[in-house]
Amino acid sequence: MIKQIEWKNDILTLLDQRLLPITEKYIECTKYDQIIDAIKTLAVRGAPLIGVSAGMGIVVASKETDKKGEELRQYVIEAEKKLRASRPTAVNLMWALDRMMPFIMSDPSDSEAYISALEKEALNIWNEDIELCRKMGEYGLEIVPQNANIITHCNTGSLATAGDGTALAVIRAAHRAGKNIHVFADETRPLLQGARLTAWELAHDSIPFTLICDGMSSYVMKNKKIDLVITGADRIAGNGDSANKIGTYGLAVSAKYHNVPFYIAAPYSTLDLSIKSGEQIVIEQRKAEEVRAFGGVRTSPENCDVLNPAFDVTPAELIAGIITDRGIVRPPFTEGLKKI
Amino acid sequence: MIKQIEWKNDILTLLDQRLLPITEKYIECTKYDQIIDAIKTLAVRGAPLIGVSAGMGIVVASKETDKKGEELRQYVIEAEKKLRASRPTAVNLMWALDRMMPFIMSDPSDSEAYISALEKEALNIWNEDIELCRKMGEYGLEIVPQNANIITHCNTGSLATAGDGTALAVIRAAHRAGKNIHVFADETRPLLQGARLTAWELAHDSIPFTLICDGMSSYVMKNKKIDLVITGADRIAGNGDSANKIGTYGLAVSAKYHNVPFYIAAPYSTLDLSIKSGEQIVIEQRKAEEVRAFGGVRTSPENCDVLNPAFDVTPAELIAGIITDRGIVRPPFTEGLKKI
Repeated sequence: MIKQIEWKNDILTLLDQRLLPITEKYIECTKYDQIIDAIKTLAVRGAPLIGVSAGMGIVVASKETDKKGEELRQYVIEAEKKLRASRPTAVNLMWALDRMMPFIMSDPSDSEAYISALEKEALNIWNEDIELCRKMGEYGLEIVPQNANIITHCNTGSLATAGDGTALAVIRAAHRAGKNIHVFADETRPLLQGARLTAWELAHDSIPFTLICDGMSSYVMKNKKIDLVITGADRIAGNGDSANKIGTYGLAVSAKYHNVPFYIAAPYSTLDLSIKSGEQIVIEQRKAEEVRAFGGVRTSPENCDVLNPAFDVTPAELIAGIITDRGIVRPPFTEGLKKI
Repeated sequence: MIKQIEWKNDILTLLDQRLLPITEKYIECTKYDQIIDAIKTLAVRGAPLIGVSAGMGIVVASKETDKKGEELRQYVIEAEKKLRASRPTAVNLMWALDRMMPFIMSDPSDSEAYISALEKEALNIWNEDIELCRKMGEYGLEIVPQNANIITHCNTGSLATAGDGTALAVIRAAHRAGKNIHVFADETRPLLQGARLTAWELAHDSIPFTLICDGMSSYVMKNKKIDLVITGADRIAGNGDSANKIGTYGLAVSAKYHNVPFYIAAPYSTLDLSIKSGEQIVIEQRKAEEVRAFGGVRTSPENCDVLNPAFDVTPAELIAGIITDRGIVRPPFTEGLKKI
């Protein structure tokens, strides 16, 4: 088991993901400031894991002070504000803190009961995330043949969630069920989450894998008898169009050409029925320097023009199925996604 | 004009490509040992450019010594052997030295005439390479619209040849002809020839371009109105199947999906009619460390399994045309390639 986050004796221990895959270092948080710092510096990353960490940040805040009653509540309210500001674009962080809010605002006259209620809700959020991952793994089992070569992209595992992940949850479940699988992990430029994080997770869990550069996946589909491609998603439109890490779309196009089924694994909460199609998804453009350099080494002409979209959109027509915590949805997605 | 190789006052000046794109440093060779060193250390790279450099190495050898007659010839024969051993897998190097051989073995009694004949043949090889590039550029002009967004992969330019390159020769010709072009250059993992070399060449020649990661090309085809994709080739089979830098095949698959014409530019000598199809092309597998690390920084778990094919094969069915120095060949390639 990867211990990306642990709660023991009122200490929240977080794996410092910045140092992976070279060093496995843990940050022991006894003050909520340390959790804010871990979120800000990307020591902890992945939308669900950030949400769980923020919820636990409230618990740590309530336990680090000797204040009681209303003073305690004021202290926790202050912590909530700071946690909320630690990564303003993280939807899961806001969502987790919203869930904590009624408990933060509740009557603090019995301090022990107040703290205990905060802890209970934060652990609920945590356990629900583990459960979501478990269910995706369970539902996903049926798409993985007994002997399977699988391509995946980016990191969708325990380093992004509090549980087994999304696409990696399916891969883990298949491995645990005794299926004979081999994973080809895209390195995922520019930030190399596949090389740094997915490869590390697979090695950690002794799941056989091969690391490849993103431009090699078509070669692999042609030459290595690939049975399926599976990735995560950041946002799924009502018609099934799915936004995910840049590079996913090309992988899906190539899967189509090679008649390899392409699957998405994502919790139900990723579905955004308010948008009809992928056309409406705005793609975040990131810093040019991520493409121009790596590890502090510049690899291209200074200040050259760069495109750095964080995501691309895979159209529904390329997707064989979407594995959610409520079951697998298959085309036509518009009806299927409404039902679950 | 990029001065990747220059011959002036009996000095062969080579651009040290290892330092690009950070530093533009030149190596002035007055001894053939320096040219061997440049080839061995990859300061000079690109099959045609290595061939031209080796030919000039013979000339430098003949001029660096005071020996006359038979002693001079023995000195040059010795140089030829060492040059030939400098990069055993480089076909163009062998080919260029084979071309020099009759002149190396000719009567050396008139030393001046002997040296002058060597110089003439080496410059012939050089000029022929420039001419090949020029012709590919000229023939390629017709496939480039007046306003064109073009995707290219790897380095196929002046840093690989003695002239304008292959695919980059077409791009250069279009730019010089006043066409309004914009190039999207794939960085080309794992060795980043696109980011380090192609981007540097395009910047040097003031051709507008945007650097992208390999996994972004499908996004770019979908969102940037791409008019054509053009790459080089390392070997073309009789039926048009083309081996080129890893990543080319995926680019061609994506071009097909987006209805973007995909072209190859390569000199006639790249054509190997002895092989019927791409199935027969053996793909070189390179060192795992190229994928495991980036700019000297390890980015993946130590010793993890890696696939690192140097090339992939693009099937003829995905190729709209092959631009050679003898004209553009269009499908069906089997007949077309035989004709030229």
